Amino acid sequence: MTQIDKILLSAGIHGNEKTGIFLIKKFKKNPDLIHRKNFTTETLLINTKAIALNRRYYEIDLNRCFDLNSDRREQKYEQDLAKKIYRQVKEQEIDFVLDFHTSTSNMGLTLLLSNDRPFNLQLAAYLAAKNPLIKLVRNANNNDRNRFRHIFPLGFTVEMGAIAPNVVDPIWFKRGEELVEQILDYIEKTNQQQQPVSPETVTVYTLSKTVYFPEDSQGKIAGMVYEEVHGHDYCALNPNEPMLTTFDGDAIAYRGSNVAYPIFINEAAYWENKIAMYLTVKEEIAVPTVLN
Amino acid sequence: MTQIDKILLSAGIHGNEKTGIFLIKKFKKNPDLIHRKNFTTETLLINTKAIALNRRYYEIDLNRCFDLNSDRREQKYEQDLAKKIYRQVKEQEIDFVLDFHTSTSNMGLTLLLSNDRPFNLQLAAYLAAKNPLIKLVRNANNNDRNRFRHIFPLGFTVEMGAIAPNVVDPIWFKRGEELVEQILDYIEKTNQQQQPVSPETVTVYTLSKTVYFPEDSQGKIAGMVYEEVHGHDYCALNPNEPMLTTFDGDAIAYRGSNVAYPIFINEAAYWENKIAMYLTVKEEIAVPTVLN
Repeated sequence: MTQIDKILLSAGIHGNEKTGIFLIKKFKKNPDLIHRKNFTTETLLINTKAIALNRRYYEIDLNRCFDLNSDRREQKYEQDLAKKIYRQVKEQEIDFVLDFHTSTSNMGLTLLLSNDRPFNLQLAAYLAAKNPLIKLVRNANNNDRNRFRHIFPLGFTVEMGAIAPNVVDPIWFKRGEELVEQILDYIEKTNQQQQPVSPETVTVYTLSKTVYFPEDSQGKIAGMVYEEVHGHDYCALNPNEPMLTTFDGDAIAYRGSNVAYPIFINEAAYWENKIAMYLTVKEEIAVPTVLN
Repeated sequence: MTQIDKILLSAGIHGNEKTGIFLIKKFKKNPDLIHRKNFTTETLLINTKAIALNRRYYEIDLNRCFDLNSDRREQKYEQDLAKKIYRQVKEQEIDFVLDFHTSTSNMGLTLLLSNDRPFNLQLAAYLAAKNPLIKLVRNANNNDRNRFRHIFPLGFTVEMGAIAPNVVDPIWFKRGEELVEQILDYIEKTNQQQQPVSPETVTVYTLSKTVYFPEDSQGKIAGMVYEEVHGHDYCALNPNEPMLTTFDGDAIAYRGSNVAYPIFINEAAYWENKIAMYLTVKEEIAVPTVLN
């Protein structure tokens, strides 16, 4: 039986994603809101230096620093911080993480699963059935091990959006708070061996491909997302439909052979890496029935 | 009769407002798009250092530096830049400016009038009658002389939004391009003494008050915009209706005696000054009929 003794509610891996940051600050100030009788809930604001600067990061993106085996001689601020946070998380023996982010993309309430363990899928499927804003994303390629969520046995990265950086959006603030309540209640019942029933299947979007902006001969970004794709995260993109356009107005089609579902479309933070969007495969998968 | 010999299309006073920046880059690359037979059109990317950094500014907000009479001993980067740009604009004898910005607020296509001269009002009224997204804003208090638009005889600051910083929004990119075309055509006709007819009256929003976020006892931001006000720029806010809320959920009402129309609600860049929104007075004013 699943027994969860300690969970972590966190935000501020990216210092300018304020809606989640101020939600965690609210929980820090009002611990009664997140108190449940059969487990402990910790709160953490992660990159306090970036938070103070109102910036995504100080030197490099902290949420690409959790591949801790690397033995670089020169340590950037965020590489050091990742190691400190890793040690802290392991000492605290956290079982489950809910890490809040925001996106400039129209991501709704996206849960990025740390892994496909039965409890993660059962909880995610339960939440998605209750709230149509919730979308589930996973990475089957295992090429995102540098993300914070992977240092925990269970849990999700939460992406809320569209929200501009450095904005506290009151609508999403409330939705984030409701999500926390639902998850805490679910875990409390699970620990009482009354885990709520999930639907038999659930829709999951599996990351498949990175789409880059078009570039000119000097390697500079020379185009943008196609007008009818912008804002249409999780909507079908069919083979040969326009996906990007040059600034001069020449459309660039999606050349895959299967329908794709773009996400993180026009995420501002991905500009520096010239990423226009990610493509995903939409799948209906079985929710494990084992009491894990 | 109005005769306009030289106009300026600009962007990048704020280096992270990319939709306008890339629109100006398009015009720089394709000068035929903005060529008209009876006047000259210049293009300018203003704070190139901030643009390269993907940041609003390098040291201080450039669009608060155009009060050039100040004789500070220590000059910040943007204070120096403002002086250089001022000299350049005066040497070029620019008659009319259209300066592109974006906002995280739901500002639609806002034209901030540099002044109330008849041509400005006639053009603005003509544009607003053609396009319901257009809203006109003016500052009657004369307390914004540090803005770039005031160094020109005529013209507008354009605010497009909601757009997150560092995003090129293809929908607004197109709308911005259409606005430029309309204005260039209007000026061309005006120079031919065929100035298009404007409506007799026009709705103008006049800035009246700055609304700050609530603060705690240490002066830290302790609240946010009220849920039903967020995203409702240019919508009526009646006396005693909630305007803000503390993070703990206590609503703070608007205590004015007249209906207000908030704008720049939750503009991310105003967070550092703790500004939650501006209030305006909505007025229907006569459009001058003089051929100025």
